[in-house]
Amino acid sequence: MTDLFTRHGPMLRAALAALQSREFWTPFSEIPSGKVYGETAKAEAEAAFAALQGRAFDLPGHPESRRLGQEQSPYGFPLGIDYPAAAPAALVAASQAAAPALAAAAPERRVGICLEILVRLNRMSFLMGHATMHTTGQAFAMAFQAGGPHAQDRGLEAVAMAWSEMTRFADAARWEKPQGKAAPLVLEKHWTLVPAGIALSIGCNTFPTWNSYPGIFASLATGNPVIVKPHPAAILPLALTVRVAREVLAEAGLPADAVLLAVDAPGAEVTQALAVDPAVKLIDYTGSNAFADWLRDHARQAHLFTEEAGVNSVVIAACDDFDGMCSNLAFSLALYSGQMCTAPQNLYVPAGGIETDQGHKSFDAVAQGVADAIDVLLSDPARAAGVCGAIANPATLQRLDAARGLGRMIRDSAPVGAGRSASPLLLALEAGDPASEAECFGPVAFFVATKDAEEGIARASTLAAQKGAITGAIYDTDAARILRAVQAFAGAGVNLSVNLTGNIFVNQSAAFSDFHVTGGNPAGNASLTDTAFVAPRFRRVMWRRQLRA
Amino acid sequence: MTDLFTRHGPMLRAALAALQSREFWTPFSEIPSGKVYGETAKAEAEAAFAALQGRAFDLPGHPESRRLGQEQSPYGFPLGIDYPAAAPAALVAASQAAAPALAAAAPERRVGICLEILVRLNRMSFLMGHATMHTTGQAFAMAFQAGGPHAQDRGLEAVAMAWSEMTRFADAARWEKPQGKAAPLVLEKHWTLVPAGIALSIGCNTFPTWNSYPGIFASLATGNPVIVKPHPAAILPLALTVRVAREVLAEAGLPADAVLLAVDAPGAEVTQALAVDPAVKLIDYTGSNAFADWLRDHARQAHLFTEEAGVNSVVIAACDDFDGMCSNLAFSLALYSGQMCTAPQNLYVPAGGIETDQGHKSFDAVAQGVADAIDVLLSDPARAAGVCGAIANPATLQRLDAARGLGRMIRDSAPVGAGRSASPLLLALEAGDPASEAECFGPVAFFVATKDAEEGIARASTLAAQKGAITGAIYDTDAARILRAVQAFAGAGVNLSVNLTGNIFVNQSAAFSDFHVTGGNPAGNASLTDTAFVAPRFRRVMWRRQLRA
Repeated sequence: MTDLFTRHGPMLRAALAALQSREFWTPFSEIPSGKVYGETAKAEAEAAFAALQGRAFDLPGHPESRRLGQEQSPYGFPLGIDYPAAAPAALVAASQAAAPALAAAAPERRVGICLEILVRLNRMSFLMGHATMHTTGQAFAMAFQAGGPHAQDRGLEAVAMAWSEMTRFADAARWEKPQGKAAPLVLEKHWTLVPAGIALSIGCNTFPTWNSYPGIFASLATGNPVIVKPHPAAILPLALTVRVAREVLAEAGLPADAVLLAVDAPGAEVTQALAVDPAVKLIDYTGSNAFADWLRDHARQAHLFTEEAGVNSVVIAACDDFDGMCSNLAFSLALYSGQMCTAPQNLYVPAGGIETDQGHKSFDAVAQGVADAIDVLLSDPARAAGVCGAIANPATLQRLDAARGLGRMIRDSAPVGAGRSASPLLLALEAGDPASEAECFGPVAFFVATKDAEEGIARASTLAAQKGAITGAIYDTDAARILRAVQAFAGAGVNLSVNLTGNIFVNQSAAFSDFHVTGGNPAGNASLTDTAFVAPRFRRVMWRRQLRA
Repeated sequence: MTDLFTRHGPMLRAALAALQSREFWTPFSEIPSGKVYGETAKAEAEAAFAALQGRAFDLPGHPESRRLGQEQSPYGFPLGIDYPAAAPAALVAASQAAAPALAAAAPERRVGICLEILVRLNRMSFLMGHATMHTTGQAFAMAFQAGGPHAQDRGLEAVAMAWSEMTRFADAARWEKPQGKAAPLVLEKHWTLVPAGIALSIGCNTFPTWNSYPGIFASLATGNPVIVKPHPAAILPLALTVRVAREVLAEAGLPADAVLLAVDAPGAEVTQALAVDPAVKLIDYTGSNAFADWLRDHARQAHLFTEEAGVNSVVIAACDDFDGMCSNLAFSLALYSGQMCTAPQNLYVPAGGIETDQGHKSFDAVAQGVADAIDVLLSDPARAAGVCGAIANPATLQRLDAARGLGRMIRDSAPVGAGRSASPLLLALEAGDPASEAECFGPVAFFVATKDAEEGIARASTLAAQKGAITGAIYDTDAARILRAVQAFAGAGVNLSVNLTGNIFVNQSAAFSDFHVTGGNPAGNASLTDTAFVAPRFRRVMWRRQLRA
């Protein structure tokens, strides 16, 4: 097991090269194919998923005072899995007990372990697809990708950044200061990397692995034991992850408790108690601004990394491929029924319409073009189910129902395919309507009428700076105006996609190339994965002694 | 002026290499010699310093609604300089007006400007020595070094780290994702570095330039306009710095107001108003834990980098050069009368004494050995004045007077040389005495009697973890115990010096090699200068567009 670092060295080096160049790269195929994952992988995963249901989840040696778990598939059945649960103090104590051995392990050893965990998780991507599908509501193909290889990519990216940062400076030096004609002063110096403390990873319902892996792996690689706190509705993907991590840690001779699972039940949440524990020094959080505010106010002892909510916008100023634009936006709005943190909500269109390759299009014609493209996209029930998936949280459907009265109806929402589902609701609003200036999470989008395209750019970027945004998009044919949009969105800390018409969407954020969230607006203070995401997770402490010259 | 980056390129590259290797390097000579700085430099600086006194300080174009300044030299005369002052809102407005041009300047341009500022500051190191001496009380030789070249080193270090971080990832990429037999998806991506916002640098009385340059230059290099808020008793060194920065900025075609001076008067401080301004996004602070706590509680909109107070300890377990140890500690205790954040306060000695090259030494003999070495060091009045300098703040003398009753007197304090001065007061205490567990800033040190050396290691490291510490030292001949001390101090986030006996002292922290403060205990959350010190000062924001493959 000591050669894990050597074994996975080529993958690490390729990841480091990709991080620098930001070019396309991944070691984890996103294609759910037997040719890649083995011809029996699909069937074995189905059997494994069936075998997990209605059973106690096995997590050998994990602290346990009782069993908890009430996950319900958005496709209409209970998972019936219960997980070991323990009081926050017991989890913290177990984590603290594991900390010294993890801190003392060389960076090579910890990084080797992290890489091995990721490779094993990759092999079980089909099972992770089922686990993700039936906790988040994502359709299988998306659940496979986002819960499996794309999440693994984000984990690997964090490990590579952690390695880069841990090895950025020499770990020892001979410091020789000239003293004129006298003998030089000579010091021998050594630096130890000292982890920050216990890391708490707070997962979300919609992307339990994709959003949690960066923090989990950045903390573990830099020597911090991790307590993984899943959303009560999406435990299984992270429980599987924790199990693999514990297996690899134990095989490598480190304490399995360096990675723990903190399961709780609605009404008896443990997140707050864990977050304010003095031993918890790092918190990675994905979720609402309101709970992030609570963490900021109360978990003052910890360094907090957040991805929160925001309002993503598209400015439609002009286009030279109207059909391509409408199809592209239709997919972005329908994909996972708008439950992505990167999904657009506001589409700013000049009230007087826009110029296109099909001539002038009125405001209503633009909105209708997108609505029609959604109808085409979802016309086949199987494809509709595959695109929209199901709604993770029943509250999203209630929000959708309440939204119907907010504006002029362009396209109504309706159930699609299997499970608790809903296609996009499209409404038209006037610029400045309060409904357009708050997040309405789920399959709801607003066509917002502006005086002109410049007002759309100004409103979208101002709203992003005030309320947060993770993505922005513009369709335009005026190079000077595009440049102004680039500057306005950059100033608001929003990544901007320009004139996407093909099989690439504003929602998509690729590891090793796209920094996800910039940290520059209220949608989050952390960016996946930049230096600031890993550097504060450990400190360099020196000892030095004098040598005779 | 566009070739500043090219002109200073060799210096930047050498700084980057030193940062990585942590070996000795500096471009700024610490020797106050005419051979280095020009034969007329000394006399010119004396004339320049005289010409500054009793006059209005000229800062062309700087916001000004009135004039303020009441600096008093600790050597017994008023400087009589008044500086332009403006209301916090006016300073913030001027800073905001300067921000867009600074943000739009290429990293090469900003870094070139920062390097030119540092080179010009270096040329005026003699003047900076006088300005530092007569605001901090440091003797001239120390004021020249700490206020001049050593501070410039720390500034250059921050600029180099900022450059390294700004160029860490590609600024553009062609991202080409294979699509099986179909044409690949191709995106063109560009990243813009977006500064965080206005940076506020809050200086201290004792090391106005050394402690402020890292934050000022890290912020400026990464595109953030800086408001420099000096301590009311130590304005001149930073006012000179601001003047040079504004000159270079203006010559380079950028707004001089990208660097502003915020002078206030006792009783009418502007620090709090500046710190909580919504536009202020970065704060660098050196000073008390109490005001750092205030900033943490109130300046929630800003990223806060602190160096605060702590209790530095020496563990004396054994030694093979008793005279060398005593002389070394004597200098560390007497240097600038203990007013360094790196000066030792507690010296833990086993109650039963220690083994040395001169045989067994009792607790009292060890304490007396250090006391005698101080007497020898300070026996010549000129040398005493050169080592101790003067006391920056009258409150320090009051604290010293109050401390006399805290323990058994080993050596009393007395005035030395010129100005408001005091030699070290040495007291003996029992382990656990509350006096030894709080900072007593100034020339006060405690010999603390412990059961054995292990208790000294435990108490010193535990105290550091609880109250903070920037330096630690141990004298020992037992390799296994030294290793245990290395681990204990590392765990407490304290840099440890082992067996220093020659002309290098625990107080000293060299740029490009020693990370000053680790960020791992309450003595500060920032480390000079690691990645975490520069990375959060800007964000990367992308724009991308689709290309036809």
